[in-house]
Amino acid sequence: MCSSNNTKSESLSDCNIGSSAGFSDTNQAPLPGGNLVDSLRAKYLAVRGMTEALCTPLCPEDYVVQSTPSASPTKWHIAHTTWFFETLVLDSQIVGYKPVNLAYRHMFNSYYNTIGQPFMRGQRGVLSRPTVGEIFDYRRAVDASMVKLIERCGLKDAALRQMIETGLHHEQQHQELMLTDLKHMFSENPLKPVYVANRQEISPEIATLCRWNPVSGGIHLIGHDGLGFAYDNESPRHEVLVKDFQLASHLVTNAEYLAFIDDGGYSRHELWLADGWEAVKTEGWQAPLYWHCEDGQWRYMTLSGLRDVVAHEPVCHISYFEADAFARWSQSRLPTEAEWEIAATGQRCDGNFLESRMYHPRAGQDAAPQDDSTQHFYQMYGDVWEWTASAYLAYPGFKPAPGALGEYNGKFMCNQFVLRGGSCMTPRDHIRQTYRNFFPPIARWQFAGLRLARDV
Amino acid sequence: MCSSNNTKSESLSDCNIGSSAGFSDTNQAPLPGGNLVDSLRAKYLAVRGMTEALCTPLCPEDYVVQSTPSASPTKWHIAHTTWFFETLVLDSQIVGYKPVNLAYRHMFNSYYNTIGQPFMRGQRGVLSRPTVGEIFDYRRAVDASMVKLIERCGLKDAALRQMIETGLHHEQQHQELMLTDLKHMFSENPLKPVYVANRQEISPEIATLCRWNPVSGGIHLIGHDGLGFAYDNESPRHEVLVKDFQLASHLVTNAEYLAFIDDGGYSRHELWLADGWEAVKTEGWQAPLYWHCEDGQWRYMTLSGLRDVVAHEPVCHISYFEADAFARWSQSRLPTEAEWEIAATGQRCDGNFLESRMYHPRAGQDAAPQDDSTQHFYQMYGDVWEWTASAYLAYPGFKPAPGALGEYNGKFMCNQFVLRGGSCMTPRDHIRQTYRNFFPPIARWQFAGLRLARDV
Amino acid sequence: MCSSNNTKSESLSDCNIGSSAGFSDTNQAPLPGGNLVDSLRAKYLAVRGMTEALCTPLCPEDYVVQSTPSASPTKWHIAHTTWFFETLVLDSQIVGYKPVNLAYRHMFNSYYNTIGQPFMRGQRGVLSRPTVGEIFDYRRAVDASMVKLIERCGLKDAALRQMIETGLHHEQQHQELMLTDLKHMFSENPLKPVYVANRQEISPEIATLCRWNPVSGGIHLIGHDGLGFAYDNESPRHEVLVKDFQLASHLVTNAEYLAFIDDGGYSRHELWLADGWEAVKTEGWQAPLYWHCEDGQWRYMTLSGLRDVVAHEPVCHISYFEADAFARWSQSRLPTEAEWEIAATGQRCDGNFLESRMYHPRAGQDAAPQDDSTQHFYQMYGDVWEWTASAYLAYPGFKPAPGALGEYNGKFMCNQFVLRGGSCMTPRDHIRQTYRNFFPPIARWQFAGLRLARDV
Amino acid sequence: MCSSNNTKSESLSDCNIGSSAGFSDTNQAPLPGGNLVDSLRAKYLAVRGMTEALCTPLCPEDYVVQSTPSASPTKWHIAHTTWFFETLVLDSQIVGYKPVNLAYRHMFNSYYNTIGQPFMRGQRGVLSRPTVGEIFDYRRAVDASMVKLIERCGLKDAALRQMIETGLHHEQQHQELMLTDLKHMFSENPLKPVYVANRQEISPEIATLCRWNPVSGGIHLIGHDGLGFAYDNESPRHEVLVKDFQLASHLVTNAEYLAFIDDGGYSRHELWLADGWEAVKTEGWQAPLYWHCEDGQWRYMTLSGLRDVVAHEPVCHISYFEADAFARWSQSRLPTEAEWEIAATGQRCDGNFLESRMYHPRAGQDAAPQDDSTQHFYQMYGDVWEWTASAYLAYPGFKPAPGALGEYNGKFMCNQFVLRGGSCMTPRDHIRQTYRNFFPPIARWQFAGLRLARDV
Repeated sequence: MCSSNNTKSESLSDCNIGSSAGFSDTNQAPLPGGNLVDSLRAKYLAVRGMTEALCTPLCPEDYVVQSTPSASPTKWHIAHTTWFFETLVLDSQIVGYKPVNLAYRHMFNSYYNTIGQPFMRGQRGVLSRPTVGEIFDYRRAVDASMVKLIERCGLKDAALRQMIETGLHHEQQHQELMLTDLKHMFSENPLKPVYVANRQEISPEIATLCRWNPVSGGIHLIGHDGLGFAYDNESPRHEVLVKDFQLASHLVTNAEYLAFIDDGGYSRHELWLADGWEAVKTEGWQAPLYWHCEDGQWRYMTLSGLRDVVAHEPVCHISYFEADAFARWSQSRLPTEAEWEIAATGQRCDGNFLESRMYHPRAGQDAAPQDDSTQHFYQMYGDVWEWTASAYLAYPGFKPAPGALGEYNGKFMCNQFVLRGGSCMTPRDHIRQTYRNFFPPIARWQFAGLRLARDV
Repeated sequence: MCSSNNTKSESLSDCNIGSSAGFSDTNQAPLPGGNLVDSLRAKYLAVRGMTEALCTPLCPEDYVVQSTPSASPTKWHIAHTTWFFETLVLDSQIVGYKPVNLAYRHMFNSYYNTIGQPFMRGQRGVLSRPTVGEIFDYRRAVDASMVKLIERCGLKDAALRQMIETGLHHEQQHQELMLTDLKHMFSENPLKPVYVANRQEISPEIATLCRWNPVSGGIHLIGHDGLGFAYDNESPRHEVLVKDFQLASHLVTNAEYLAFIDDGGYSRHELWLADGWEAVKTEGWQAPLYWHCEDGQWRYMTLSGLRDVVAHEPVCHISYFEADAFARWSQSRLPTEAEWEIAATGQRCDGNFLESRMYHPRAGQDAAPQDDSTQHFYQMYGDVWEWTASAYLAYPGFKPAPGALGEYNGKFMCNQFVLRGGSCMTPRDHIRQTYRNFFPPIARWQFAGLRLARDV
Repeated sequence: MCSSNNTKSESLSDCNIGSSAGFSDTNQAPLPGGNLVDSLRAKYLAVRGMTEALCTPLCPEDYVVQSTPSASPTKWHIAHTTWFFETLVLDSQIVGYKPVNLAYRHMFNSYYNTIGQPFMRGQRGVLSRPTVGEIFDYRRAVDASMVKLIERCGLKDAALRQMIETGLHHEQQHQELMLTDLKHMFSENPLKPVYVANRQEISPEIATLCRWNPVSGGIHLIGHDGLGFAYDNESPRHEVLVKDFQLASHLVTNAEYLAFIDDGGYSRHELWLADGWEAVKTEGWQAPLYWHCEDGQWRYMTLSGLRDVVAHEPVCHISYFEADAFARWSQSRLPTEAEWEIAATGQRCDGNFLESRMYHPRAGQDAAPQDDSTQHFYQMYGDVWEWTASAYLAYPGFKPAPGALGEYNGKFMCNQFVLRGGSCMTPRDHIRQTYRNFFPPIARWQFAGLRLARDV
Repeated sequence: MCSSNNTKSESLSDCNIGSSAGFSDTNQAPLPGGNLVDSLRAKYLAVRGMTEALCTPLCPEDYVVQSTPSASPTKWHIAHTTWFFETLVLDSQIVGYKPVNLAYRHMFNSYYNTIGQPFMRGQRGVLSRPTVGEIFDYRRAVDASMVKLIERCGLKDAALRQMIETGLHHEQQHQELMLTDLKHMFSENPLKPVYVANRQEISPEIATLCRWNPVSGGIHLIGHDGLGFAYDNESPRHEVLVKDFQLASHLVTNAEYLAFIDDGGYSRHELWLADGWEAVKTEGWQAPLYWHCEDGQWRYMTLSGLRDVVAHEPVCHISYFEADAFARWSQSRLPTEAEWEIAATGQRCDGNFLESRMYHPRAGQDAAPQDDSTQHFYQMYGDVWEWTASAYLAYPGFKPAPGALGEYNGKFMCNQFVLRGGSCMTPRDHIRQTYRNFFPPIARWQFAGLRLARDV
């Protein structure tokens, strides 16, 4: 029998129905040909399996390293995502739940003060134990409990379903971070290790013809409409007022960015925000992260090793400061997140995602002539996150999710900028039109690029 | 004869008319009973004189110290404001102008890369020379040239008038900073020096009755309308869409803030942004800057020395993080800068400014009963700068001022929050409804407090 | 045919005889029942095997971590010791030697600027690759070449023998460091991993009776006499003049150190050097490294996990500052390195070394009554390194070894103190009476304790 | 009536005779033509007056700045030396002594934990108050009390005389530091202010002929013999054993140092200690402090402003690391402090001291041919402090002075090197053969150079 109030079940045979949940998802219709439990279990196993599949090319040693304070070891990612289910689902849903290892409660807590003292972020790379094998055991133990819980309570307990959905989206975020962090670690190694050997057909060297697509201003609605999953920071859906503007049909390419470099972009203070100019000088930036020049040829590190820079790929691994400086040099600007979301309306959420297994942005297609009559944007989703001109702040009327989930997004609304659209590292069903990613303006290790906008 | 194009005058007898200027001011009507030249000269001398008047209580030693990297020595303020006129006005207007001292060009350049290599900010306190006397000589020399320039060209050259106006507003900003920085320096001295001995009648200990004033949403215009002086960052005037909201009639008081402290405000992570919580822990914050507890009595440093905290004064010297945490604790929020500006419409720009010579915020008046029928806000101007929930970003269509002035505001649009309304340190005619001040969210040495808002 | 001059052999069939070598060893007599080649090969294989044997309890993840900038990952130790043989022996001895991997030349260079750009010390923990397996392959490849080289040239080439000897002593130093670093890494892990489960019979809780043994002053000879292997910093043997002094028969124990703690040792500034007192305050020292107090019981981390502090063991993991403060509190002093070496004359170089597999200092034996008539010191060797009052400086007439080996010792003669006698982590045949270990006075992660001295 | 035990006098009419005193001085013979009291008062007034005389060229602003953490503001020096007399003499000698200002007790305490919490060293430049005038008032008040104390008790109280003597030597040390710190401050100012305008006749450009003077080894006595004043760290006088050695007749000159620079001295790692090489790279050292190259001409900052480097002056403002690297490049070495002291025996303590008012080292005289038969050293005293190869450590049997004076020297015996002989900034009667100055090996702002030694 499933309890009907917000108390913990005494055992896995009881369910906790109707508890308040963190993130919105009213998408309760059963999948065609299945039911709620089957589809949830399937999704759970698929997402969890994807994380492990991504680990396939790794040696145990690769799981351990924290190559920069903003990155985390792979071990930590696969343990922390498991911790999330254990702590926020199993422990809160099952009376008398016995944690797999009490110390993990502390060790794999990222930043949830509600749940106790998080382990010091900068020390994640010190934890040789638990071993990779022990963490996979941890995953299996938690997965077994999760599957039981889904099977017994998944049907009746909408809040539970939603919490699990949240945990899966959380895990997808960490899938992207895991690879992003691996790339950084490999880039620091003189051996320039290869994650996947024969990643990509090299993108064809065809320049795209970027057009300025007009977008009508006025009062628009942005933010999540409550259909399907979303994080709390995408709500409430609300009206915004924008002026008519133009948005580039394509992402900025390496070729275009090289023109900026060649025009002295990194040595002209007038193109930069003060903090950006400071970063250029103190960090010695001269090109995007992972780029270096060998005998006049720009090369970059990829997850398939060192490569020549491909001219017509979207530029990637740039900070907000660089995106902003490039836009100023272009006599354009970055779009606001509202502008991006308005322009994205009606665009298919399709593109070069994690599932393509490129692990690298792909050169955009050229706009076919017959497209001229219609507004069309290329690569709005996937390839590279697009820096926007919007500081990451609360939407009007924003309410953080209750409980520990309230620490997921809201407490970071300061000194960060919003990025939109996902990247080649983002799982396809993780991204959506209203999705708000955010990073400090100095961050470069994410797969981030830009699309230009301008006033009419 | 005054030239009519944008070239430098060959001497003070020629004027440069019509050059593009930095900040907007179309307020060209002569003052009643005067003319453009007389009023500009008078204003120039008044503002410059005010700076020097503020120095009266100081010993030469007080001018030298930089007590924290974000502060500057008094010497530097009075030299830099002079540098501003010399470099941006005299040097650009007078052909063959001979600088008072060529080294000052570098030494007193704050951050204008356009004008050469600025002197390292953190080293301003190393400059024992030029002496205070030499800097006053520098002021006099520049003032003499400025007055001549005003007299010969002030009538015909609107751009010149506007540039001078900008220089005077710039100087007023530094008047406030100068005292703010002095307060910090004195606070670090065990002798707790007194800037003015008998500052204030102690504010009467009467609690004000704070009311929630409703403000109607909809499309409003904010930003500068072009009448009178404004900085570039206040433009362009543009439409914003806001929802109905409520704004507190009064500023948050020390008494209210003490309730927050007593309720564990500084030890409850859930009230804080992540970066704010980090600051609380690493900086050991337990109260506003300059507060300490002696035998159960809260005391603070003022420009009249150590005093007991006065309960019904507006709380002051808090960071954005503290303002935000207090608002969350109050189940309210900070207003956006648009909300603040809308609510300020129709309010008189009056209050406790620099000219009151309090150098300290004053307790608000209670709202008289007969006010109940009307929307009324107290202390919107003066007393303390009000943190808003708005990141400091460009208004839609923002264009930085041309030339060096373009570095004045635009390049700082990153990782700062907007404050509105001026403080007890702000000169009365420096502030206006559209004025956007900005500081990093961790800054506390400014006279900054807050006013609460809430959704309807 | 072996060449007789100082040129590289063209292949392994040629030897390089008579090349100048780094460290002194005139001990060329064949071992009884063997010959030079057999004994060198046996020693080579034994030392190299010991390193690998020490790795047996480790998982691959344990090899990767650099838990503090002064420590190195196990992987790095086992690769760097191999690099030493490859670079300083194989590469210099064999014409056309092909390195196992050219990148290792850079990656595993610790600090030999003579050999190229060393890899940044603080980044050693970023290198997930080469994997542990690949490093063991590296070891095997180098070992095979080394064995061949020994077999073909070991007999004729004294300089080669000596260089190999140096490489083996170098490797022994890293055996100790490897375990020292592992202990630090495990201590930072909340799981408090165990390197060996059942390390030790607990030392019997019997207090030793420490006596002051008189030592006669006068002119003594210290430094290496040229018999057997020694590092360059132990030479030349030279006369020193010391006064009569007394040296404690035993090491300072935990019980004695606890008395210092209980007497406020860590809160009395007058006991400390200024830099030591600064360290106490900024680092928050309250006891030796790895100690913490649980409900009134002092516990410490060992390589067998957390244990109660054993009273009569030698105190360990203290800095020079703590040793010095303890000595001052005891109204004694630390011995100079000359005093230590003089007192050690005639003492058997025996004790609790790495081979005992305790991995922990052992409580000293009590001096038996019949010993009273003779001067006797306990635990001069093994257990804990003994801090001396001597700064680590050149002996009169010191000449660094030629070539890259000259960077081994001489360039560190600054801001370090000498330690003597080896520890429970030191291989038995690595230590000797003249051996000079050295660490900065703030270092605590070594197995270092102290023995008191006093003036007569 | 003067008390005969170690208790405080109740008033200035009583003296405290026989109290244990810090530093040795048995030189109690009255000056010819005077008496103990007169000579002490005269010396007191002379030394105190010299400090103030050195301030004559300064503006009030010059007194305030702390241009680097190891330097102190002039204000602080003149207050702290007064504090020394007030706290260590007046306050301990006079019952009921009322401090001039209780806050000064804390503000001007350098590092005497025995006397309470010292003011944070790095914050000395924040203290604009007390003003320079107030500090001179402080000096006068303390001087008046001191003179009274000397007059009433100076005759009978040997310990008091000795304590005053210590205070005067302390003040002389600060005279040197004051100017050293001023030089640093002025060097950081783009105006390159001049302390004294026409300092020096330029030293004649005559190269000196440096000879190697042999010094016989054997057992020598070094350390203070108890006649006249000395600090505790110069005792006890003790035997040292040295080998025969040679010591250069002259200091190393700028011309010689330039040869080192031109030979790539700053880019050849093999010449440097590891920590020195690190400093070269991280600090960007390419020449001594205060040197820069303008169009191929080396120039340096002096207390008379910027000058061309004079070839045959002693090189100055180098660190121990540079002195050591130069010596290695010269295939020589630095002398030990014992060697220096032995060689100095019989040399007149004369030279270019503070009293010459050069404020700069002077080129050495050439050794006349007829000197060849005698051992002669030039500039052993004055001009520049000479770095020795000796770490600053306790002499055998060293006992720190009792009380607060025990913090004067002993607690710094760690990570510093000894310098000998005084400089052009040292008062003539402050230096002596046994004087041990000490600074960290990275320090460059002192007037420090070197003299070479070599083994026979």
